[in-house]
Amino acid sequence: MHDLKHKCGVFGIFGIDEAAVLTTLGLHSLQHRGQEGAGIVSYDGKSFHSVRKEGLVGDNFDNAETLGKLPGRQAVGHVRYSTTGESRLENLQPLFANLAAGGFACSHNGNLTNTISLRKHLVQTGSIFQTTSDTEVILQLVARSDKQKTVDKLMDALSHIEGAYALIIMTNKKMIGVRDPFGIRPLVLGEKNGAYVLASETCALDIIGARYIRDVKNGEMVVVTNDGVESIQLFSQHKERPCIFERIYFARPDSIIDGQTVYAYRKNLGEQLAKENKIDADVIVPIPDSGVPAALGFAQQSGIPFELGIIRNHYIGRTFIEPSQSIRQFGVKLKHSVNRSAIKGQRVILIDDSLVRGTTANKVVRMIFEAGASEVHLGISSPPIKHPDFYGIDTPNYSELLAASHNLEEMTSVVGATSLFFLSLTGTYMAMGHPDRHEDVPQFTDHCFTGDYPVDARELMAEEVMKGVN
Amino acid sequence: MHDLKHKCGVFGIFGIDEAAVLTTLGLHSLQHRGQEGAGIVSYDGKSFHSVRKEGLVGDNFDNAETLGKLPGRQAVGHVRYSTTGESRLENLQPLFANLAAGGFACSHNGNLTNTISLRKHLVQTGSIFQTTSDTEVILQLVARSDKQKTVDKLMDALSHIEGAYALIIMTNKKMIGVRDPFGIRPLVLGEKNGAYVLASETCALDIIGARYIRDVKNGEMVVVTNDGVESIQLFSQHKERPCIFERIYFARPDSIIDGQTVYAYRKNLGEQLAKENKIDADVIVPIPDSGVPAALGFAQQSGIPFELGIIRNHYIGRTFIEPSQSIRQFGVKLKHSVNRSAIKGQRVILIDDSLVRGTTANKVVRMIFEAGASEVHLGISSPPIKHPDFYGIDTPNYSELLAASHNLEEMTSVVGATSLFFLSLTGTYMAMGHPDRHEDVPQFTDHCFTGDYPVDARELMAEEVMKGVN
Amino acid sequence: MHDLKHKCGVFGIFGIDEAAVLTTLGLHSLQHRGQEGAGIVSYDGKSFHSVRKEGLVGDNFDNAETLGKLPGRQAVGHVRYSTTGESRLENLQPLFANLAAGGFACSHNGNLTNTISLRKHLVQTGSIFQTTSDTEVILQLVARSDKQKTVDKLMDALSHIEGAYALIIMTNKKMIGVRDPFGIRPLVLGEKNGAYVLASETCALDIIGARYIRDVKNGEMVVVTNDGVESIQLFSQHKERPCIFERIYFARPDSIIDGQTVYAYRKNLGEQLAKENKIDADVIVPIPDSGVPAALGFAQQSGIPFELGIIRNHYIGRTFIEPSQSIRQFGVKLKHSVNRSAIKGQRVILIDDSLVRGTTANKVVRMIFEAGASEVHLGISSPPIKHPDFYGIDTPNYSELLAASHNLEEMTSVVGATSLFFLSLTGTYMAMGHPDRHEDVPQFTDHCFTGDYPVDARELMAEEVMKGVN
Amino acid sequence: MHDLKHKCGVFGIFGIDEAAVLTTLGLHSLQHRGQEGAGIVSYDGKSFHSVRKEGLVGDNFDNAETLGKLPGRQAVGHVRYSTTGESRLENLQPLFANLAAGGFACSHNGNLTNTISLRKHLVQTGSIFQTTSDTEVILQLVARSDKQKTVDKLMDALSHIEGAYALIIMTNKKMIGVRDPFGIRPLVLGEKNGAYVLASETCALDIIGARYIRDVKNGEMVVVTNDGVESIQLFSQHKERPCIFERIYFARPDSIIDGQTVYAYRKNLGEQLAKENKIDADVIVPIPDSGVPAALGFAQQSGIPFELGIIRNHYIGRTFIEPSQSIRQFGVKLKHSVNRSAIKGQRVILIDDSLVRGTTANKVVRMIFEAGASEVHLGISSPPIKHPDFYGIDTPNYSELLAASHNLEEMTSVVGATSLFFLSLTGTYMAMGHPDRHEDVPQFTDHCFTGDYPVDARELMAEEVMKGVN
Repeated sequence: MHDLKHKCGVFGIFGIDEAAVLTTLGLHSLQHRGQEGAGIVSYDGKSFHSVRKEGLVGDNFDNAETLGKLPGRQAVGHVRYSTTGESRLENLQPLFANLAAGGFACSHNGNLTNTISLRKHLVQTGSIFQTTSDTEVILQLVARSDKQKTVDKLMDALSHIEGAYALIIMTNKKMIGVRDPFGIRPLVLGEKNGAYVLASETCALDIIGARYIRDVKNGEMVVVTNDGVESIQLFSQHKERPCIFERIYFARPDSIIDGQTVYAYRKNLGEQLAKENKIDADVIVPIPDSGVPAALGFAQQSGIPFELGIIRNHYIGRTFIEPSQSIRQFGVKLKHSVNRSAIKGQRVILIDDSLVRGTTANKVVRMIFEAGASEVHLGISSPPIKHPDFYGIDTPNYSELLAASHNLEEMTSVVGATSLFFLSLTGTYMAMGHPDRHEDVPQFTDHCFTGDYPVDARELMAEEVMKGVN
Repeated sequence: MHDLKHKCGVFGIFGIDEAAVLTTLGLHSLQHRGQEGAGIVSYDGKSFHSVRKEGLVGDNFDNAETLGKLPGRQAVGHVRYSTTGESRLENLQPLFANLAAGGFACSHNGNLTNTISLRKHLVQTGSIFQTTSDTEVILQLVARSDKQKTVDKLMDALSHIEGAYALIIMTNKKMIGVRDPFGIRPLVLGEKNGAYVLASETCALDIIGARYIRDVKNGEMVVVTNDGVESIQLFSQHKERPCIFERIYFARPDSIIDGQTVYAYRKNLGEQLAKENKIDADVIVPIPDSGVPAALGFAQQSGIPFELGIIRNHYIGRTFIEPSQSIRQFGVKLKHSVNRSAIKGQRVILIDDSLVRGTTANKVVRMIFEAGASEVHLGISSPPIKHPDFYGIDTPNYSELLAASHNLEEMTSVVGATSLFFLSLTGTYMAMGHPDRHEDVPQFTDHCFTGDYPVDARELMAEEVMKGVN
Repeated sequence: MHDLKHKCGVFGIFGIDEAAVLTTLGLHSLQHRGQEGAGIVSYDGKSFHSVRKEGLVGDNFDNAETLGKLPGRQAVGHVRYSTTGESRLENLQPLFANLAAGGFACSHNGNLTNTISLRKHLVQTGSIFQTTSDTEVILQLVARSDKQKTVDKLMDALSHIEGAYALIIMTNKKMIGVRDPFGIRPLVLGEKNGAYVLASETCALDIIGARYIRDVKNGEMVVVTNDGVESIQLFSQHKERPCIFERIYFARPDSIIDGQTVYAYRKNLGEQLAKENKIDADVIVPIPDSGVPAALGFAQQSGIPFELGIIRNHYIGRTFIEPSQSIRQFGVKLKHSVNRSAIKGQRVILIDDSLVRGTTANKVVRMIFEAGASEVHLGISSPPIKHPDFYGIDTPNYSELLAASHNLEEMTSVVGATSLFFLSLTGTYMAMGHPDRHEDVPQFTDHCFTGDYPVDARELMAEEVMKGVN
Repeated sequence: MHDLKHKCGVFGIFGIDEAAVLTTLGLHSLQHRGQEGAGIVSYDGKSFHSVRKEGLVGDNFDNAETLGKLPGRQAVGHVRYSTTGESRLENLQPLFANLAAGGFACSHNGNLTNTISLRKHLVQTGSIFQTTSDTEVILQLVARSDKQKTVDKLMDALSHIEGAYALIIMTNKKMIGVRDPFGIRPLVLGEKNGAYVLASETCALDIIGARYIRDVKNGEMVVVTNDGVESIQLFSQHKERPCIFERIYFARPDSIIDGQTVYAYRKNLGEQLAKENKIDADVIVPIPDSGVPAALGFAQQSGIPFELGIIRNHYIGRTFIEPSQSIRQFGVKLKHSVNRSAIKGQRVILIDDSLVRGTTANKVVRMIFEAGASEVHLGISSPPIKHPDFYGIDTPNYSELLAASHNLEEMTSVVGATSLFFLSLTGTYMAMGHPDRHEDVPQFTDHCFTGDYPVDARELMAEEVMKGVN
């Protein structure tokens, strides 16, 4: 039950029949990274083809008619998170432009932190933007570059941008992957039957039966052509600091990061939470589905039985919009129901992977008490989130982040639990396989817990504050 | 991962504002009983109003516009299972007819076993059928009855029909619930703020905050009016034989039957399975989501760790139709992925609640082996299904039921597992709280395991055979 | 610019390949008789197939997919007029029922005058109606008949009904056409390549290249089988009294009735109007498109020049719903514009074929004055409409019929013209080729002008009055 | 029955409430200039709003919901002709760009003749085009201009383009109208309640009750602000040469050009045709609706009676796609039927306003012969079309233009008529009120008849030829 949302997932494949079919499968496996819409651009040796649609991959790209519009042996795709308002179709990716050198498609996961000033300069000197996406800044910079070759134009453009990004770019002859200097957003390289694959997570390799080769490195550009893969190190070497949230919340449980499944990291977080917090209770209940691995880890470590005390309704449909005052009170019950036989008269430890606003947690805790629990302890398998993200995660701003303005006692009162406990920062690093956080050059991008922002985000912070003022 | 499907769920409420809103919520909680379509008929003191739509309740009935078309303080609803072919909209329920005595709406869960002959007679004497539904036979019989009062007409009609049924009928002044002589299909009575509620399961009472009063009894008719509830015992007393599949597969885990949650029965089935089958293994893995409670019960009884070795993709969308030969091989992977860290090198016990055709089980077993399991044992928390159903469950016919024509060794080979084991019939009854099956008058309708059909279904069997011949 | 609307057109063809294609063409040519929706039922030797859709024939039945759902060598179709409110799809025809003797499809043009009492009796004795259409009464009567053969059942049913009707009925072996005792509604018989055709007008024969054989006679039933056509005279011989409005307003100009085109009758009406009314004027302007033939006749007779003074906008679209107060004033201008060079400073005679409510005429007259006409005379090429219809034409009731409650002076004031003049009743009969109206047994059904209703319509009149009361 | 199609109509209004409502009405009256799609951009003092939809104005912009999305006191709109293939939505106008100086909306009627080279240069220096429309070249040039003020940027851009154009541009403070140096495409200025209006034709002023002020002159820019209208003459004075086709074919009959209705010009053309061609015949029949005014002129001049011998079916619907071989033969009959009483045994003169490919004329002539005409003479009220257009009219290329490759005798044979006759070029100029064509500086753009192209179109001709080669 997440209050955080990823902004995107990317996938590309080069040199194989039915590239769009494989891209559809890859995007489907990355659907957890964005449900608003999806897009695929393919190239068939003569022309580029593009289909971008609001909604799920499996609802829009599964049919022969749509796939028939995407012929060719190379394709790049994108899934995008759910947002509201704004004209949305034009912001779906991959973005595509007919540049002087030919077609140029770009899928982007992440967020650029200096787009406001870059965009302003480009508009003043004659560029017409068609979207509000920061990704278009990259395209406009490439279009403006006076370098000759596409790779050089792209390197020229990248030298102007800052932020977190994993890019997959496709031209008529190349597929190019790029990861930002800190490697904040993920990108992996794989191979299937001689064709190279780029994707946000390994689960997208698994679904098409591709072999994992390696992660694209922070600050690295990989250029895939018919001759193979070439690697270019773009920036003077930073130490890698991947986003810790991928492991805690976002990546799919079966994806492998740094040699281990994400599921295993999350069980570790639950075990670590149990080591740090000895609570006398009768039953461990996960908040579905985000809290399940940590709850299993907690249960195995603590010896307290694990039960599915909350049952998820699988038939929610797309749009259970609450239609009347009288239906509004049923909010949480539309999605979940309580398994009373596991709850009634029990001291319950609820486990979830994060606590953001606290409003959903409050409803769940109340639902458990109403089902007859004598105590409800809420354990969170990560530290309190005190700072918003500007690198591609859709976090609330400071005023809505519960931990930004409340101490533990106040938060406990807000969620209405008997007790509330978080995993320590050190415990979080230990669950990831490190003895502790390196305070000088931390192993991860973890600013949401610590306020330590590796890339200057003041331009976006200022804009956020301005919005708050209005 | 069910191969069996329920045919319907029913809900009605009488004497409360926004009756259609509450019916929408009730139907949403019964959505597991049918996803093809849903319908609601309301009565506002002057007119009857009807909306019937293909698709999920939450997609079609949640909006103010639709609910605005269903005014009134009494409503009856229906959810229907997914079928293929045929003009479908006309078969959605509640069926409605303007009879001489006024409007008559009817929701039906179950299956009549003598409709072929009844329908033939009615058509020959001048009735025009608009649907292929067996429920319309009831309406036509009511319309033809020469009794004066609606309740008497209905009793007259019921005296001609045979089979399994839970009916909710609404007229301008009454809501009537009826359960067949054996009580094969379920129907419960509840109350919210003085208004009476009828529903297939208690979970539909819970979602609207209604209080459970009691089950409608086998062969009982309950008549709700503004003056309260009247009970009429329609048939000479049979012993109740509710369908055992409700507990094993169909009812929602949080629904309460006979004083216990369905979740608890299913954990019992898993525990019992563990008692009967001692297997040397490293990990218990449920087939999601149907196998989870039994797997938890098996794990707790056996002491072998429980792991989520198979992860369900929540973003399947409506229609992942396989579009091309190359995508077809990815079938199971579209819906599930393997958590390799829990599987690799392990001796795995997979748990599911049933085995019908064996084709899905075969794909799952293979997927687990491919993820590196050294052994894959498949445990089923119920007996082999050897006979089809004719009382409202969509089972395959004999030729497709694996256990109807294969012995255990052959079935093991079909699913491709290291070993395959089922729960015994006695174990099944024990998990339900009985020492054993009463061979003379069994406590449950259990013909799928035993071939013991409480109601004569030869008319339907003959038709099935005829189909097979063509 | 009609305020009157036809209720339906019918077409059937028996014994030819692609019967549904030919039926689509026939219905398209009858589209002026009804634009709300259309339907076709075909029979392919094994099964009946039905498609009914709201909207125009050319928008819904032209595609290979729809036509592919209607295989077979016999088909019957229907177009229906535009109405508002009510659930509409279920009222589209042909109606179809599976009777004991087999499938029975029925297309009906007209209106039954004793359906209220018939329907009441049928419901009380057990029939369930699925539509509000009077046509269903015929089906239910046929279903109830205890005769053995379908033709006999149908004759039995027809013996109970009264009113105006042209029916085309199709069973697996027959196509049957029936016309009411007075022949109020039209029905013609044709032939194409040995296949028999029934249709409301000859224009439907022309479009498919069929040969006109003869009109079905009043009170006649024609039964088409593979052996040819059999004629049965159903009722004791009445004198024929076809509806005069078919010639004046409804039939398509190129249809032939009684040996002459409808266009020729309408020119005659205009000539007769010019003979009866000598007006000093500069230009004859038709109200498009209904007034064009009469205006040409008037101009040729009077010697005053004919000009297209009002130009019709062909791109109205389906639904120019007036969206705001400020757009409402533009009403008439959305559909028509004035050709000022033909109007300015001129004495104009506007010609239309009828005057019903007077509201549209008033807007047109004002528009012509605003364009600079010095005089605007409005000539109507038929007598004043003083009585509503109950035989299948959608007329307003008494309170809305301008001529029912206003004398000529008052009507002139309502429409705002310099003068207003109508054709006399005798002149109308003369234009049809008769020396005068036979007062004892008139040659036409002309109650809208005379109040002489050939079939008792008091049941429907009473209902209308009741509506007026509410 | 036109084979030529206009490419666009434009409308704008500045300084009045409900500007989008008035723009909707204006576009509706210009619908004959383009039926593919329509768009409106409004500005409400703070933001620009845009709605662009495929289909008719009356189907898409009439509802309160759509108009509610277009608030403000200034709006500009566009209708676009029907084309096939290509992604169409993105090419709908008005085009809109957020330039450095603010929002910039542009509606364009016409065709630029040097876009290929301009576009190539812009792309090579970094512009990203989002459409294939030549109009976007204007926007990109404006965006690139290093002038300070919008009007200066626009003038800078216009100095680079060549061709035929009528533009309406809207910024947050201005509405600007521009007409090309020869005034090939039309643009008129009007006023309603103090608000200025720009439109392609006067019929768009009439529908909203606006007063006609004057035509925008060739090479003139009019700048409307809250302070009134300013006129800027952009180019060294050419003599005006408006497109003669506006009067002959395209403009609406009630629009006024040069002090006379278009209807009157067309009657003149018919009269002139009768003067030049004395044919012995019984009846004049227009090909509807394009031939009606000329036929009336021909009839009045010749004294031969005018009859509606061909009747148009008003219920064609959008898409009577021919679904099967058997329906294909009915082609023309779907749209028109013959009024046999006016044709049979007659010597018929058919009148139309143009002859392009000859295929439709052939079908009509055959239909008239089949209805029994003894002779069918086809008179065309304009000269033979021998050259394609490149200034905004969708003409076929040389190979498809009948008169480009056939002499009169051959053409007569192709259309199958007894005789075929055209109006002379001199007669055409006389009908327009000129004694003859000025051979040195002709009064009109008339290259389709003469090959005299006032603006160099070789770039587009070359491209056309290249297409022919492929």
